[in-house]
Amino acid sequence: MTVARPDEVRRFNRSSLLRLLHLGGPATRAALATELGLNRSTIKMLVDALAESGLVEERVPRLARGAGRPSLLVLPQPQAAVVLAVDVQVEHAGIALVGFGGQILGRNSWNLHGRQRQPAEVITHIAESATLLAADLGLRPVAAGVSVPGVVRRADGLVHDAANLDWTDVALGARLTAVLGIPVVVGNDAELGALAEHARGAGRGAGDTVFVSADVGVGGGLISQGTLLRGAAGYLGEIGHMTVRPDGRPCHCGNTGCWETEVGEAALCRALGRSEHGPRGAIVAELRALPGDGGPALAEYLDWLTLGLVNVVNILGPELLVLGDLFTALPDAAVAGVAEEVRRRSMVSRAIGGVRIEKSRLGADSKLLGAAEAAFDGVLGML
Amino acid sequence: MTVARPDEVRRFNRSSLLRLLHLGGPATRAALATELGLNRSTIKMLVDALAESGLVEERVPRLARGAGRPSLLVLPQPQAAVVLAVDVQVEHAGIALVGFGGQILGRNSWNLHGRQRQPAEVITHIAESATLLAADLGLRPVAAGVSVPGVVRRADGLVHDAANLDWTDVALGARLTAVLGIPVVVGNDAELGALAEHARGAGRGAGDTVFVSADVGVGGGLISQGTLLRGAAGYLGEIGHMTVRPDGRPCHCGNTGCWETEVGEAALCRALGRSEHGPRGAIVAELRALPGDGGPALAEYLDWLTLGLVNVVNILGPELLVLGDLFTALPDAAVAGVAEEVRRRSMVSRAIGGVRIEKSRLGADSKLLGAAEAAFDGVLGML
Repeated sequence: MTVARPDEVRRFNRSSLLRLLHLGGPATRAALATELGLNRSTIKMLVDALAESGLVEERVPRLARGAGRPSLLVLPQPQAAVVLAVDVQVEHAGIALVGFGGQILGRNSWNLHGRQRQPAEVITHIAESATLLAADLGLRPVAAGVSVPGVVRRADGLVHDAANLDWTDVALGARLTAVLGIPVVVGNDAELGALAEHARGAGRGAGDTVFVSADVGVGGGLISQGTLLRGAAGYLGEIGHMTVRPDGRPCHCGNTGCWETEVGEAALCRALGRSEHGPRGAIVAELRALPGDGGPALAEYLDWLTLGLVNVVNILGPELLVLGDLFTALPDAAVAGVAEEVRRRSMVSRAIGGVRIEKSRLGADSKLLGAAEAAFDGVLGML
Repeated sequence: MTVARPDEVRRFNRSSLLRLLHLGGPATRAALATELGLNRSTIKMLVDALAESGLVEERVPRLARGAGRPSLLVLPQPQAAVVLAVDVQVEHAGIALVGFGGQILGRNSWNLHGRQRQPAEVITHIAESATLLAADLGLRPVAAGVSVPGVVRRADGLVHDAANLDWTDVALGARLTAVLGIPVVVGNDAELGALAEHARGAGRGAGDTVFVSADVGVGGGLISQGTLLRGAAGYLGEIGHMTVRPDGRPCHCGNTGCWETEVGEAALCRALGRSEHGPRGAIVAELRALPGDGGPALAEYLDWLTLGLVNVVNILGPELLVLGDLFTALPDAAVAGVAEEVRRRSMVSRAIGGVRIEKSRLGADSKLLGAAEAAFDGVLGML
């Protein structure tokens, strides 16, 4: 027989309320009470305590409907709890301070070339940049989340293998914790993208969702029954490294014909007739200037995109596929065409009456926001 | 504040004890008490009640160690609760009555050719055969589980698409429930195979496990954190339908170059220089007669097997891969070679220090036993 102690109940309710405000934004006391199944006096007590800690403010709603005293609007205060979000990509890195409620309060980014891409350089730059940003904004992050395009051991943030960064067994979590002096969570970029899309983007309210990231490399993150799925020891979703063209191009991972060699950034550059490793902005601009369906230039690229997505749908069976990063620059009609073809060719999609395929709504920020969510995950219960 | 009522607690403890005996087999009262965290008098009361229902018998253990009165051995009584397990494959179907504890008490099977493969014929034959078997053994099944090589909607057992059987939208669950007069659960064959391997086979005690089935078609079932994973609406793991050879053979699913066209039964027949759709027994005998590593005949087949398994490991990140059905007839040295190559070539395997790859220990029975587990899942709480 399990009987929860009153202080455990209070702590549980407090952290549920914090999570609700963090993900759902401002809401009336009445709505919060309904959502959490609590009575008026309990919600009042909880909100009062949060207001005392400075985590929320209460305000009379501008448009109060109906008769009687309007229920007070509870607003999360972004500055009251702040985390550092870090997004390490192959060509550049970005940091942001993200407030309670998910708002980006300030940001900074820099390019990574040659030596700058070495772990020690990246770590030093993150620490310096974070210190400056925090001082500028007069804020102190309480935790940090870091997104890395590679295979990451979640328990301690060891980056086993980030082929495109040329990193092997980098103790990123431990080293950043040491220099930043706050708890650090490190995650795979596609997993964190999935987390962000589920919490705040195209995947909000959706069932099983796969987020497909496309930078230099391609990865996937899977939300199943509301939580991020992890394989043995936390690895899952290296969908960029499924072989789709056995007689194809060599991949950084050591294999041949991996999907990312056909749909990653380099493949897009080839399709557009550009040299690889050109500036990202130019590629995006060129994609945006293409005819609606992508025209002949993109035809083969889109075929490979379709083929890999059919595989992903057949293997992972999601209700929603969210295309992130570079994919968001593809012409809308081209994405719609790919989606239709995937629905037609995947037996799993046919069985569920059609998988939805959408571009990310968070665009280039999905990994940064996912890193922030991972950091908040560890601290929301302790605020 | 949650307070469980005493009768809820008793029911929960009873069903935990039943599950433990069903999966773990005979155990002493003392061991059961330790496992469930219950005291002596509670376990005595629970075991006495099960004995009264005839579900267990108690016996003094033959070899009692130590001083004092030995703890009584509790033995599940297979005949006390029986389910019907059905395994529909492309070329044949089998049924069994499986007792509490997982023992097969009796079985029967028949071939499926031409008209016999039509849903109405299959359903009629299952019902007749089950009635005869039950009468022979003097047993009455309380529920049924059915394995089908296709995309199945778990909620009502609708078989959406079983390409190799040529079935589309067959209401198998509803129709069998009507003719058998007991609750029927229908599941995808690879998923049920995964369930059985996890409960009683090579996956026992393992973490995330993928079971790869290979009959005419190829499928996958994924156990993650102890439970069978399902995608949106219950579809997941159609790994046989990942495209691995875009310029390859046409597949029943409508695509080209699906993995199952390279590693399913037909591909094995081609490798062995036999006509497709020969008798299964002859293929198995021929495989068993091959040299240890499979020799030149199997070389290309094993390459495709490796390629697909690398994809499965990179995408699903399991700790253990169990090869079922036809794969169990492959020479051991050939499987060991494939396993080594998969570990070398999959970045996820390298990251977790090597995925384990093993043949199924349940062999041809894994789907039948998985169907039984699915049926028991629904009734253990009600015995």
